[in-house]
Amino acid sequence: MTDLFKKEDIQLLWDSTVGIERETKRVNEDGTISENPHSDQWGHRSYHPYILTDFAEAQLELITPPLKSSEEVQNWLAASHQIVATTNDEHGELLWPFSTPAYIPEDRDTVKVAQLSDPAEVAYREHLAEYYGKDVQLISGIHYNIEFNPQIMDQRIEETIAGSDTDFKTAKSAYYVEFGRRYLRYRWLLTYLNSATPYVSDNYGTELYGQPHKQGMRSIRQSRYGYRNHPEVQVSFNSLEEFVQDIERYVEEDYLMLEKEFYSDVRFRRGAPLREMLDDGIDYIELRNFDINPLHPYGMTTEDMDFVKLFTIALLFKNEPTTMDDVNYGHALNQQTAEEDVLAPIADKDEAYMLLDLMTEMAAELPNADYLLQIVDDKRQQIERPELTLSGRVFKNVQTAPSFLEYGIELAKEYQELYLKDNYTMHGFENFELSTQDVLKEAMRLGVKIDVIDAVDNFVRFTFKDQVHYVRNGNMTSLDSLVSYFMMENKVVTKDILDENGIAVPQGEQFNLAEKAKQYYPLVKDMPIVVKPKNTNYGIGITIFNHPASQEDYNAAIDFAFEKDDTVLVEEFIEGTELRFYIENGEVLAIVERQPAFVTADGKHTVSELVDIENKHPLRGKAHFAPLTWIAKGREEETVLKDQDLTFDSIPEDGRKVFLRQNSNISTGGISIDRTDEVLEEYKIYAAEAAKALESYYCGVDMMIGDWTQPVSEENRYAIIEANFNPMITLHRFPGIGQERPIGLHVVYAIFPELKELDGKMK
Amino acid sequence: MTDLFKKEDIQLLWDSTVGIERETKRVNEDGTISENPHSDQWGHRSYHPYILTDFAEAQLELITPPLKSSEEVQNWLAASHQIVATTNDEHGELLWPFSTPAYIPEDRDTVKVAQLSDPAEVAYREHLAEYYGKDVQLISGIHYNIEFNPQIMDQRIEETIAGSDTDFKTAKSAYYVEFGRRYLRYRWLLTYLNSATPYVSDNYGTELYGQPHKQGMRSIRQSRYGYRNHPEVQVSFNSLEEFVQDIERYVEEDYLMLEKEFYSDVRFRRGAPLREMLDDGIDYIELRNFDINPLHPYGMTTEDMDFVKLFTIALLFKNEPTTMDDVNYGHALNQQTAEEDVLAPIADKDEAYMLLDLMTEMAAELPNADYLLQIVDDKRQQIERPELTLSGRVFKNVQTAPSFLEYGIELAKEYQELYLKDNYTMHGFENFELSTQDVLKEAMRLGVKIDVIDAVDNFVRFTFKDQVHYVRNGNMTSLDSLVSYFMMENKVVTKDILDENGIAVPQGEQFNLAEKAKQYYPLVKDMPIVVKPKNTNYGIGITIFNHPASQEDYNAAIDFAFEKDDTVLVEEFIEGTELRFYIENGEVLAIVERQPAFVTADGKHTVSELVDIENKHPLRGKAHFAPLTWIAKGREEETVLKDQDLTFDSIPEDGRKVFLRQNSNISTGGISIDRTDEVLEEYKIYAAEAAKALESYYCGVDMMIGDWTQPVSEENRYAIIEANFNPMITLHRFPGIGQERPIGLHVVYAIFPELKELDGKMK
Repeated sequence: MTDLFKKEDIQLLWDSTVGIERETKRVNEDGTISENPHSDQWGHRSYHPYILTDFAEAQLELITPPLKSSEEVQNWLAASHQIVATTNDEHGELLWPFSTPAYIPEDRDTVKVAQLSDPAEVAYREHLAEYYGKDVQLISGIHYNIEFNPQIMDQRIEETIAGSDTDFKTAKSAYYVEFGRRYLRYRWLLTYLNSATPYVSDNYGTELYGQPHKQGMRSIRQSRYGYRNHPEVQVSFNSLEEFVQDIERYVEEDYLMLEKEFYSDVRFRRGAPLREMLDDGIDYIELRNFDINPLHPYGMTTEDMDFVKLFTIALLFKNEPTTMDDVNYGHALNQQTAEEDVLAPIADKDEAYMLLDLMTEMAAELPNADYLLQIVDDKRQQIERPELTLSGRVFKNVQTAPSFLEYGIELAKEYQELYLKDNYTMHGFENFELSTQDVLKEAMRLGVKIDVIDAVDNFVRFTFKDQVHYVRNGNMTSLDSLVSYFMMENKVVTKDILDENGIAVPQGEQFNLAEKAKQYYPLVKDMPIVVKPKNTNYGIGITIFNHPASQEDYNAAIDFAFEKDDTVLVEEFIEGTELRFYIENGEVLAIVERQPAFVTADGKHTVSELVDIENKHPLRGKAHFAPLTWIAKGREEETVLKDQDLTFDSIPEDGRKVFLRQNSNISTGGISIDRTDEVLEEYKIYAAEAAKALESYYCGVDMMIGDWTQPVSEENRYAIIEANFNPMITLHRFPGIGQERPIGLHVVYAIFPELKELDGKMK
Repeated sequence: MTDLFKKEDIQLLWDSTVGIERETKRVNEDGTISENPHSDQWGHRSYHPYILTDFAEAQLELITPPLKSSEEVQNWLAASHQIVATTNDEHGELLWPFSTPAYIPEDRDTVKVAQLSDPAEVAYREHLAEYYGKDVQLISGIHYNIEFNPQIMDQRIEETIAGSDTDFKTAKSAYYVEFGRRYLRYRWLLTYLNSATPYVSDNYGTELYGQPHKQGMRSIRQSRYGYRNHPEVQVSFNSLEEFVQDIERYVEEDYLMLEKEFYSDVRFRRGAPLREMLDDGIDYIELRNFDINPLHPYGMTTEDMDFVKLFTIALLFKNEPTTMDDVNYGHALNQQTAEEDVLAPIADKDEAYMLLDLMTEMAAELPNADYLLQIVDDKRQQIERPELTLSGRVFKNVQTAPSFLEYGIELAKEYQELYLKDNYTMHGFENFELSTQDVLKEAMRLGVKIDVIDAVDNFVRFTFKDQVHYVRNGNMTSLDSLVSYFMMENKVVTKDILDENGIAVPQGEQFNLAEKAKQYYPLVKDMPIVVKPKNTNYGIGITIFNHPASQEDYNAAIDFAFEKDDTVLVEEFIEGTELRFYIENGEVLAIVERQPAFVTADGKHTVSELVDIENKHPLRGKAHFAPLTWIAKGREEETVLKDQDLTFDSIPEDGRKVFLRQNSNISTGGISIDRTDEVLEEYKIYAAEAAKALESYYCGVDMMIGDWTQPVSEENRYAIIEANFNPMITLHRFPGIGQERPIGLHVVYAIFPELKELDGKMK
């Protein structure tokens, strides 16, 4: 079964899924290990799919789901790093960018093992600390999980066993074990190219392995001073049966406390106990020989992820049987490579070229061949020039820095800034609407499993324990009913239902005939009204009568509106402020007022300069990609300035509010102002009643109010203008002015009420 | 307050709402009164808003809600007549088209008073039978309820009382009472024009009034032999206070058993007891002096409804005070007119012209002036020619018929046929989708109150007792969740979710690059597949491989599909039959198979003739307006025939199934065949599981099955092709072949579970 795949399968193999586990330590700003506990902001370690702890309490493990492309893997890492960094920032913590620590406290007791809720897990870690020493356990790494595309792998296995007695799962496991042997035989090349631990803190060392004889070797982590089991532990990769038996024996003989204590660069994965794999087969393989790349904020570059994938696919086509002798040869070559000086020449140049040639051959078959060939060529250069390898570059950087510790802190600070950049987005998920990003981020933080169903539609599946919820566009869920959506989707129906339920809506009528509209005059002659074409843009064709109109003026307004549209609305005009109420299940969670783009003059700068200053507001950016939009300096803005007797070059007097727009849309520079705690309770009740009448769970109610600081009266009226079934979250989450409201979080609470109880109380 | 309105108000007054109550008797085919009880198919009389009983058990009262136009009133009457007639048809009953009976059994005891559940109501009717005699109580009529548009009426009242002490409700009631006096003064003209009871059965008569001295008077119903209280009962219309006091006094003195026993041609309406009106005001007015028009299936023509409306509006502008003397004069003139010979000249020609002139003047102000002026002109001719009045025409018809009874039976049979025409529609509601019509019809039958929210959107509100439900397009309700809708709306998401839940969907992939699609070949090389452009119409660009394709043929199919679209799907092809499963709350209510348009040859007719014969199928009609569509004889059909070596002129052999189309859409003549009881349970379970995975309440699951009479096996596969959030009801309600399934009824049951318990068990 050595030659399982055919050349035509390469594209399908490229679609194999990869998931990354990236370990990292939380450190203080001086590089010392944080003594803060794992934050209760990160859900619960016992089930969190993305944010866990490894050995030490301060040692985070950030996990991505299996994904088809390296770009996606980076996106998920970006998100989990951002979430973790946001909390760390509050505690003055950074993420240590190296696999190896630059600082270990002399008093090892200050380093706590992970305080998991399962006492067995804590005991296991105490055992590890005791047996291997805390120092080695403080080493972090990257684990690379790959499942070869089962669509093609399973088919090829089926073909191979057709007509024989071999069972499918056994055959598939055997092939994974064969692959494991090949990987162990050839992984030394990856160690040569991608190692990144030439340094470790000077007081690093353990009783079991001793202390490295020198700094500056290619990979301390992969050397004999790294993460190793007792030398007695020699596990066979001859077959899955032997593999499992060996590990079971070492556990029985107390060389290992648990099966998972077997530290190998290759692990076969399905679940515990290992023996189950004999019946159920191997699902995927975990490759564990990767040092964290300190030159990348998430520990591994996209190119290296792709390089490793190409390397594994090349091995699939390295069609010759691999024996345990080969594996042992590979172990030795790998240790040699790890322990060599970073600038030492490569151990086996011919084999390196052979492997890279095979990879080149594979790359040529793929649609993204140019990109992959470039990566392979870059590695090719490193064969001849060890200083270009990752360890070579890291070594040089540390040498020119004040110290390993200070160099690490510098990188950590740089990355921390990057993790927190545009923190209103969810890093890696910027192709979703901002509203969805807010919900996704809170869900990920709390440990809800996320599956993207359709990114374009902002459609995701959330799983928490055994509960599954689908969410579209941030707050469209199973909590809302279908008919409620249709009620709000049709503005005539909305108004009809609100009116029917005794809620104030602008009184009015729509007309298809000017004559009929004019005959409506007696009904509106005593009230402020607005006459408008049904479908109007930019206010064209609208006439507002702040004071009762004469029949003549009214008729003229009707004729004017009918010039623009076949249908004309005559509506009561409610003067005042428009507020947006965000309602969840009958409760007003937030209220904002929206104002058109404006700047406040200081008597010194021109309007143009004031706009430049305002555009530096951290929430402003490109329309729809930031909570607020940059204010433009176009013709529309010019016209609005002209109405105020201003130009962009004017220097208005100190304190003057200068408007750049008439409309308050966020996408044209408008600003939202939080008013949640200021608006009179009375209006919140009206808004909540409207949402209830529309049978909605989530509802954005737009209300015109004469003066929202005063109760409703004959003179101070209100009316509900519109109701939205998918109210924008960002308006409240990141208002331009005023308090931020955690709206996305409430969505997660609503669909998983248990999380509301648990949030902030978890470990 | 006599001159309340201004000329400019006429258009708004025309928008006043009118509701009709139409009484009618259920009779057997020989004209005898039905002794069947009020059907338990018609909900419960104690709350039914549309179908009730009046005095006798066989005396139906069909009620419309208040509506702005006479067309709408006719629509509601059409629907209630159809519903009642559908049940009557099962019992061999007809609706008697006259106000007056042509047959009264000699043994009056066989006529039962309405057996209502409230014993007080039965006792009241027993009293009426005792006191007035059953004969007079068997007379039916039309009541015309009008509420003058409160938008303008309330405003004018407010203006009138501004600055005075008069309270609004008192003022409004006073105006309605003033209107009542005017109406009683002038209603004689309506009696002259629209009476229709020159005949009554020969044995008609009561102890109280005696027997009419002759047949052939204009209106026996409105004469002294009609529906009258004891002559002592003389109620003042001077003021609402006097009116209420008088009635209360007559009840106290036992001239009336209940307040509602006061039979006047005018009733003020709000609710019982009358005294409450003194505080709460009058809401609307009921005009009761209308004989049923036997020449119209619903008892009153649209023109006469509009004529009466115009008459009432004209009276609003007849701005002179009306006294009780005037009222009494009106009573006398009306009685004289009623009791005159049908061909006698009009009593007061000058007054008639005066009233018609006033109506002409009003009509000229309205947008539909031409239509209204024509109506008034028609009536004008009847002033000079009594034989053209309704009574005149009816009199003549009866004279030329074998007998009054036989003439009535003939009309009743003609109407019965009309009531049942195209019974798959809901009469008067044909502008709704057929699916919505089915639900509306069942709702109306069961006594659910219906409000049309938006006819174009098929959006209705259902009210039953204190429960309100909104329904869109027949089965989109609050029972379905918003996110379930989005799951099904996005076909990729549907498939993803079904797949995730272990439900069979056609395996496949979509591609944007031909190269990538071709590399997919290894995965599909052993299975039947279909290669198709993503957005395809009429099968253009599709290649089906019933047997595994060669790489060469596969590549050619990919290139062919990419010529038609930028996105191409490669999908497993499941050969077999496509079935539609209609699922409600996890239960499969119905299954149909759809077949393309076909005819079965008889060896005698040409294909063209066979199509003509098939097109006479009672369910076939214009696309979307009938459950099945007429089969066309176009180019498409010609091509399909050619593929079968046929033309429209061929005479195929007896028994041959000749297809006219390839696609099975109903709109191109396809037919649905009920398979509910035939399909194996196994497939129903899969369909129900799919609906559950999609979290749907209502779901139409489209499933391909190799052979639905056989269980699933390697050779006999199935897959779910699509799921629909708004599955068509008509497919199952009126299949072309097989059993009808009461799907709309189930919707009503689902939203009002109480009705499921009560249906068929009500009286």
